[in-house]
Amino acid sequence: MDLLSIDSLSDAQIEELLDRSQLLFEDDRSDTKPVRTLAGRIVFNLFYESSTRTAMSFATATHRLGASALSLSVEHSSVKKGETLEDTARTLGAMRPDALVIRHRDNGAPATVAEIVDAPVINAGDGTNEHPTQALLDAATIRYRLGRIEGLKIAICGDIRHSRVARSNAKLLPRLGADVRLAGPPELMPSELPQVSVDEAIDGADVVMMLRVQRERLEEEFGDAPGEYLGRYGLTTDRLATAAPNAVVMHPGPMNRGIEIDSGVADDRERSLITLQVEMGVAMRMACLEMLLRETGA
Amino acid sequence: MDLLSIDSLSDAQIEELLDRSQLLFEDDRSDTKPVRTLAGRIVFNLFYESSTRTAMSFATATHRLGASALSLSVEHSSVKKGETLEDTARTLGAMRPDALVIRHRDNGAPATVAEIVDAPVINAGDGTNEHPTQALLDAATIRYRLGRIEGLKIAICGDIRHSRVARSNAKLLPRLGADVRLAGPPELMPSELPQVSVDEAIDGADVVMMLRVQRERLEEEFGDAPGEYLGRYGLTTDRLATAAPNAVVMHPGPMNRGIEIDSGVADDRERSLITLQVEMGVAMRMACLEMLLRETGA
Amino acid sequence: MDLLSIDSLSDAQIEELLDRSQLLFEDDRSDTKPVRTLAGRIVFNLFYESSTRTAMSFATATHRLGASALSLSVEHSSVKKGETLEDTARTLGAMRPDALVIRHRDNGAPATVAEIVDAPVINAGDGTNEHPTQALLDAATIRYRLGRIEGLKIAICGDIRHSRVARSNAKLLPRLGADVRLAGPPELMPSELPQVSVDEAIDGADVVMMLRVQRERLEEEFGDAPGEYLGRYGLTTDRLATAAPNAVVMHPGPMNRGIEIDSGVADDRERSLITLQVEMGVAMRMACLEMLLRETGA
Repeated sequence: MDLLSIDSLSDAQIEELLDRSQLLFEDDRSDTKPVRTLAGRIVFNLFYESSTRTAMSFATATHRLGASALSLSVEHSSVKKGETLEDTARTLGAMRPDALVIRHRDNGAPATVAEIVDAPVINAGDGTNEHPTQALLDAATIRYRLGRIEGLKIAICGDIRHSRVARSNAKLLPRLGADVRLAGPPELMPSELPQVSVDEAIDGADVVMMLRVQRERLEEEFGDAPGEYLGRYGLTTDRLATAAPNAVVMHPGPMNRGIEIDSGVADDRERSLITLQVEMGVAMRMACLEMLLRETGA
Repeated sequence: MDLLSIDSLSDAQIEELLDRSQLLFEDDRSDTKPVRTLAGRIVFNLFYESSTRTAMSFATATHRLGASALSLSVEHSSVKKGETLEDTARTLGAMRPDALVIRHRDNGAPATVAEIVDAPVINAGDGTNEHPTQALLDAATIRYRLGRIEGLKIAICGDIRHSRVARSNAKLLPRLGADVRLAGPPELMPSELPQVSVDEAIDGADVVMMLRVQRERLEEEFGDAPGEYLGRYGLTTDRLATAAPNAVVMHPGPMNRGIEIDSGVADDRERSLITLQVEMGVAMRMACLEMLLRETGA
Repeated sequence: MDLLSIDSLSDAQIEELLDRSQLLFEDDRSDTKPVRTLAGRIVFNLFYESSTRTAMSFATATHRLGASALSLSVEHSSVKKGETLEDTARTLGAMRPDALVIRHRDNGAPATVAEIVDAPVINAGDGTNEHPTQALLDAATIRYRLGRIEGLKIAICGDIRHSRVARSNAKLLPRLGADVRLAGPPELMPSELPQVSVDEAIDGADVVMMLRVQRERLEEEFGDAPGEYLGRYGLTTDRLATAAPNAVVMHPGPMNRGIEIDSGVADDRERSLITLQVEMGVAMRMACLEMLLRETGA
């Protein structure tokens, strides 16, 4: 079993991951020693794009389960020597890791690797396609904080066109009963989606999830002045005031403070779930690793 | 005890490594839990040249034995600050690792380090000198697949002059009774060796081992047109047809498909041992680490 | 509890660290298996500046205690994406590591991180401010070799103005009763300190600790000819002859042989403690990790 997309998971598996991650999260907070269910296992971390939080989150999850994470820094690799992704996958697969986590700038690269490698493959983000563990941790965070997902209005705002986080959440959250509204600057919305303005999306929302925008793209492609994005599309205190009372704020990080989110909003202890997302992320990745290794009979 | 060269090993030690690696290989395939013979040990991996397969192979072998591999990325190191190799060796040796694996672009660098460091040192490839664990895993792969090495005709073809893989194999395989034929373009053959053509070497061979050539060198130094090498010196289906019936194909990787080897040959499930070499590589490095630590009394 | 500066430690804690590190050092030399007091723990290593010895020393200490060191190579990180240090700290802290080791080029960066992260933070060197574990290992090395620190004359020579090693030692060693003399070229001395010449500092010293100087700075800023520094300010055999009989030589590494220290002096087996410092460094970092995790109730 691989975790390449939200579509890889049955409803029952999603439910299990949400339940198990919450238990692991609570165990860690109460300093209950983690059950080292994967003691002696080896997980390969193959990051073709730089990452702080995702790479460290997977490595932490792996070690908390008693396994070892071996990271391949791709800058130091055969990739430079012109080896194909398929040959790299054959090589790494032949070393018989217990699981392989991959981030890659090309859509579908994890699926290509998964066809070759026997071990379970986890997509840690591929191009503009999917980032399923991020969506799963987002769902677990919402459910932990608001008690449910069913019936919630969830606004996801920013560079929807290029966001793998948005794509995975747009698949997962509606399956869990949420009303998801995707919104962003017209230039950054996929043409097949209805054009919803950020103001419309946030109006009455229970959850406002802001996406990272690339500052360089804004200024170079769209000629934005510095700060212009925040006023037009970012999450300011004023804009958040139009959401539901007690609406919560999320961001997959890393944040551009003062661009897609106002610092005061990001740091609002009552409403910002941003660090909670990171904490839940480790628990969710533990739950995913456990499930995949069990399902693969490893 | 260090493993700097094939010459570091007695015949009895080579026999033990071949036997032990095959046992570890079969245990892993049958999902027998590895005996964590090196639990709590620490192995330093010091790679002055980039590597995917060798670095990951040693790290996997180390962790499968229950030890921890600590990798030193040399780009982030004192080397930049002008420290000599000897001083780096003194520093790392003073941390008392249980073993030290080193790859370096200079011939003899592992030997220099081994003179300073008490812990066993494994040469993971030094310049154009040796790569003994590659030759050992090649021998183990041949023996596993063909049942013996004694009496086999083994062609090693490509850039013989610069290949540490060829040098180590040219020492090891004849000691095990093989008839080894080294062949390549005249410009890439050491002048002291008889000039054997690739066609002559492959004719009737039981094993054809192709070496990576540097595409840039071919085009820049020798003015080759793209694809010219494959026709003249590479392993095509036609050329393989002149080898013994059921001849097997090997390559230490990473491959240049369409240069030194045709894709159809590389992917021939009956005859290509290329991924088997990688799998055996982990087992062989486990066997080497076990032996070196035992012999050193660590 | 954090270890940001020598000032973070009480006299009793310093005493405990000196005693405990010596015990761990002797256990390792006698091949006594280390007590894996931190089994299952996870330590984050966050190095914003390149490092061989300090990064490997902390990783080795961590693994010898049974914990896992997860290294964040900052070149591959959100830092490039413009995330603030505070947000990186929030993110890493939310993953709930058991300790966080940080090196950073900005003075005070570890203190900033420590305010945010619940886990104990260890300063592995910040700008020109402090490097407390280096001073602690230096003190442990002196005490191990000379039996005491009280009453010793200790010369610290070189680029005092920019040296975090000098600053931490200048705080620690006097607290332990040493008479510390800081000396260097006038351009590299802080203006608030008395201008002591290197010759005056070394005269009659029991310990001579040389600091690394940046060769480029010497030649570019001060127009030094190559080799000029050694004669004027470096530790030559002649200059060492003016120290106390049996004076010992120290250097935090990496050394510039022939610049701040003569090779013959560096390699003097009777008097040079340079590799002993490295060996003691692992033991001291083990002692620090143990104390911090215990004090934090982790």
